[in-house]
Amino acid sequence: MTAMKDLERDYYCGELSSEEIDEEVTLMGWVQRRRDHGGLIFVDLRDRFGLVQVVFSPQEAKEAFEKAEDLRKEYVIAVTGKVARRPEGTINPELATGEIEVNVKEIEILSEADTPPLQIAEDSEVGEDLRLKYRYLDLRRPNMQENIILRHQVKKAVRNYLDEEDFLEIETPMLTKSTPEGARDYLVPSRVHRGKFYALPQSPQLFKQLLMVSGMERYYQITRCFRDEDLRADRQPEFTQIDMEMSFVDEDDVISLVEGMIQEIFATAGLEEPTDFAHMSYQEAMDRFGTDRPDLRFGLELVDVSEIVEDSEFNVFSGTIADGGEVKGINAKGCADFSRKDLDDLTDYVGNYGAQGLAWIALREDGISSPISKFLSDEELEEIQNEMEAEEGDLLLFVADRPKVVAAALGHLRLKLAQRLDLIDQDEFNFVWITDFPLLERDEDEDRLVSLHHPFTAPQDEDIDLLDSKPTEVKAKAYDLVLNGTEIGGGSIRIHDRDLQEKIFENLSLTDEEIDNKFGFLLEAFDYGTPPHGGIAFGLDRLVMLLGKLETIRDVIAFPKTQNATCLLTEAPSRVAEEQLEELNLKVQDDEVEVN
Amino acid sequence: MTAMKDLERDYYCGELSSEEIDEEVTLMGWVQRRRDHGGLIFVDLRDRFGLVQVVFSPQEAKEAFEKAEDLRKEYVIAVTGKVARRPEGTINPELATGEIEVNVKEIEILSEADTPPLQIAEDSEVGEDLRLKYRYLDLRRPNMQENIILRHQVKKAVRNYLDEEDFLEIETPMLTKSTPEGARDYLVPSRVHRGKFYALPQSPQLFKQLLMVSGMERYYQITRCFRDEDLRADRQPEFTQIDMEMSFVDEDDVISLVEGMIQEIFATAGLEEPTDFAHMSYQEAMDRFGTDRPDLRFGLELVDVSEIVEDSEFNVFSGTIADGGEVKGINAKGCADFSRKDLDDLTDYVGNYGAQGLAWIALREDGISSPISKFLSDEELEEIQNEMEAEEGDLLLFVADRPKVVAAALGHLRLKLAQRLDLIDQDEFNFVWITDFPLLERDEDEDRLVSLHHPFTAPQDEDIDLLDSKPTEVKAKAYDLVLNGTEIGGGSIRIHDRDLQEKIFENLSLTDEEIDNKFGFLLEAFDYGTPPHGGIAFGLDRLVMLLGKLETIRDVIAFPKTQNATCLLTEAPSRVAEEQLEELNLKVQDDEVEVN
Repeated sequence: MTAMKDLERDYYCGELSSEEIDEEVTLMGWVQRRRDHGGLIFVDLRDRFGLVQVVFSPQEAKEAFEKAEDLRKEYVIAVTGKVARRPEGTINPELATGEIEVNVKEIEILSEADTPPLQIAEDSEVGEDLRLKYRYLDLRRPNMQENIILRHQVKKAVRNYLDEEDFLEIETPMLTKSTPEGARDYLVPSRVHRGKFYALPQSPQLFKQLLMVSGMERYYQITRCFRDEDLRADRQPEFTQIDMEMSFVDEDDVISLVEGMIQEIFATAGLEEPTDFAHMSYQEAMDRFGTDRPDLRFGLELVDVSEIVEDSEFNVFSGTIADGGEVKGINAKGCADFSRKDLDDLTDYVGNYGAQGLAWIALREDGISSPISKFLSDEELEEIQNEMEAEEGDLLLFVADRPKVVAAALGHLRLKLAQRLDLIDQDEFNFVWITDFPLLERDEDEDRLVSLHHPFTAPQDEDIDLLDSKPTEVKAKAYDLVLNGTEIGGGSIRIHDRDLQEKIFENLSLTDEEIDNKFGFLLEAFDYGTPPHGGIAFGLDRLVMLLGKLETIRDVIAFPKTQNATCLLTEAPSRVAEEQLEELNLKVQDDEVEVN
Repeated sequence: MTAMKDLERDYYCGELSSEEIDEEVTLMGWVQRRRDHGGLIFVDLRDRFGLVQVVFSPQEAKEAFEKAEDLRKEYVIAVTGKVARRPEGTINPELATGEIEVNVKEIEILSEADTPPLQIAEDSEVGEDLRLKYRYLDLRRPNMQENIILRHQVKKAVRNYLDEEDFLEIETPMLTKSTPEGARDYLVPSRVHRGKFYALPQSPQLFKQLLMVSGMERYYQITRCFRDEDLRADRQPEFTQIDMEMSFVDEDDVISLVEGMIQEIFATAGLEEPTDFAHMSYQEAMDRFGTDRPDLRFGLELVDVSEIVEDSEFNVFSGTIADGGEVKGINAKGCADFSRKDLDDLTDYVGNYGAQGLAWIALREDGISSPISKFLSDEELEEIQNEMEAEEGDLLLFVADRPKVVAAALGHLRLKLAQRLDLIDQDEFNFVWITDFPLLERDEDEDRLVSLHHPFTAPQDEDIDLLDSKPTEVKAKAYDLVLNGTEIGGGSIRIHDRDLQEKIFENLSLTDEEIDNKFGFLLEAFDYGTPPHGGIAFGLDRLVMLLGKLETIRDVIAFPKTQNATCLLTEAPSRVAEEQLEELNLKVQDDEVEVN
């Protein structure tokens, strides 16, 4: 294996077993633990591959023993010694190398160590800021090493699979042009072309489409993307995307290719291969789960009771429906005994998503308890209970509002209830493809149409005629893959026809100048023979996080930034020398108080 | 394979053979060529995997034939038809599919095409600007597709090899902190932390060292790096690096690992595996070839004649030596008959590298011809000829100057002569490791020491004592791999001791504040148990270029920039909206005339 000045490492710590008994070996690694016992010094020696116990004896090797007396946690050492079976009664079945130990003859201290500011152990409770500042120590912890290894394995699986499937890994530029979603681009000032800027890519979308025009047919890349967005929960300013594009395909081709890739990923990560990929239309997902990222590991589906209560004397319901709204509910099974405070909390919770209130009917042992039941007829109450399959002990929760608000409020309420009721099987990996998305939706604030995915998504063939008359009814050839309620990938068949692409840009109210400036080169490319094509992109960070059953993507990124887009280790971003800015012909306008 | 709306592609064009005769197949691709002959239409259909001839007959399939009459070059079509053996006499042995053709029953035109501005053919002569503007068409040319495929294969080989060798692929940040060579950093203004900047990495050096501190032990990454440098021949502002780092290793470990990787790359690319990796010290390379990147595919070595001429009456020689300079020569075998103009051209050429002149001695059939021989004694002349192994017909060329100038002038002259004399075997891949570099050299302009590699390079153990007394004599644990006279990779064993690292920073005249600000986190990391480590990085672009026997790295990059750091396809960099700059708290100082 590997050689040091004097010693030559010939095994990893974690790979030693009773097969090496009596063999003289040299190991290198970190001191995980030192115990002095019965006149001997025992050290758990750690490398990336595991732990092994090494023993220093003053009788057997005096010099080594004396050096070992200096050892403290996290010292880096090289030792040479003979592998021996551990004495009866000291075998450690918890440890892969627990049957053996190494009786050290020689030791070299390669690096001393101060007491680390955080424990190098799986279960140490440390604040994340400290972990990020000392990331190089945090990464020594076995669970963090596992995360990094899992990420490596996932990438390897993706590459092997796509290589077998005739994909070419092709790199696209990082210094590129401001994109459609330009407002969130990171800009890079050019020194040569002073006053001009590159933009870091939010995705390689345009380039991968150009690669299809270029006849590469099957492209992939595991690549960094950048988005300077408002800092929201668990996003990173730079993230890694598994990006792919294929020519001469339809939706089913992409979907079946991806399912194979997911299976390969699971197999490589040592997980059971998923075989059951559900399919659901956008509309069905919104109707039943209030979201296009439904978590199907549990029920608590949304039930539409609008028809039952549309003529109700309860004005909150009937009035909302008359105004074009709807009334939907969730049957919280067995929750009839929620306290008033519980219910107030849930009402506050749905309020976060715009709901004005949360109506409830508790089917208690002693009869119905509800602030609204007095406004509902017996018939309405019965029909509601039938529709919602309610039984004694259940709690029915309702939101009446515009469909968007109902979906958001109940969609989130559903998740909250599932957590509270512990309905989620944490070992399940539940996949569902969401399809038949709307191509366009109306941005209420700006009163114009926007793309639900992006402007290159192809409309479904049979809906093209609706682009003028009923554009929001046009469905897209788009598909998202959702795992346990998180979107892990999304893509579409693209437009490959110049006229249709221009038509869509017009739908999106882009001016000719904007079209030409931003997308002129793509439109021109379409003039020279463009194959039908489509693709998909996966968020690698999130995928690995879910596979590893982790809480945050920061745990699968070696050197992540904080929510605040800061690197606590290097203290980036930072001020730069005035001369650097002068070279770029730039001036910082004024020194403002920094956001924290 | 892949499905379209109506047709399902079931073979690639290039993979059809006589085995498929009588089979009905569906193919998709681009019209490479159309010929109308004997009432039939012949189309060469092209996809990424090759060409196949498809035939339209008005008798066999009238509708398809009529559609085929519209076909022009680069139309994208799908065809279904039966594979048949070509008629006697029309078999094309040049083509992999030359034995067969497909008699089309059905055709779908998937995309029409205007006449492309450049020919889609291997040998088309097109200006590079046009190629870069229409890169998506340029990439359709078979040789460009081969380059992209070769690049894919090289990366695959690297990954497979390093994975087998227990390396983990770990991603390091792109939005990071201004580095040691900060002056050439691309800066990225932060929107959240207004007035602060990230820097794009010139290399992941600090992070990969931190990964060693973190116990990852073996790291690699094929990653983008950025350098905003003065635009020199065949550089790109963004380039791809094969980057690796290993713990518990010495120079030999890294070198032998890399040799295995190079062999795997060659095998994967279908080239003969190199077995002979020469080793040469920096000093020997400078002495014999005038460069630390010697091309060993030919001789024309530099010969030191200083001792012979140090007391010569020829003052240009003896005076230079007396001033601490040297006199070296090259024996241009068989070039005695170079014309006066040839010699003037060579003199001008070495002048580019600082040489004041080029002395020459031609050993012609009719005796010595030389402007300097009259100043040299017979003895001196004879000794020179002996030392340079000169015979009749040879031309001896000399430069007398400071060693740096002599090396640069003769090193370049050597290459120029080799090209002119056609001494270079273009099929040879000649590797040499250069080792024992000086750790530090004196920057004459700034009168301070600078690192020959970078400040993290470890000095050779036996030279550490010289750091104070004779710092420029300290040798480094550094190694570069040179292929055919081009450095393709370079690396070193790193310093892993805080005190030594601080000592080196002091040698480099860094202030405590600079050290702390730039490298404080690295020095602190060294306090917590740091394994000895080292690594290497390869320029992927250049490596693939050499493997593909190409002239420029732009031919192995899908979307390169010009020498001027511009993307001719997307027109990046470009001006951005004033609002974007306002959000960043930046102002462009003034609108200058742009560099072209």
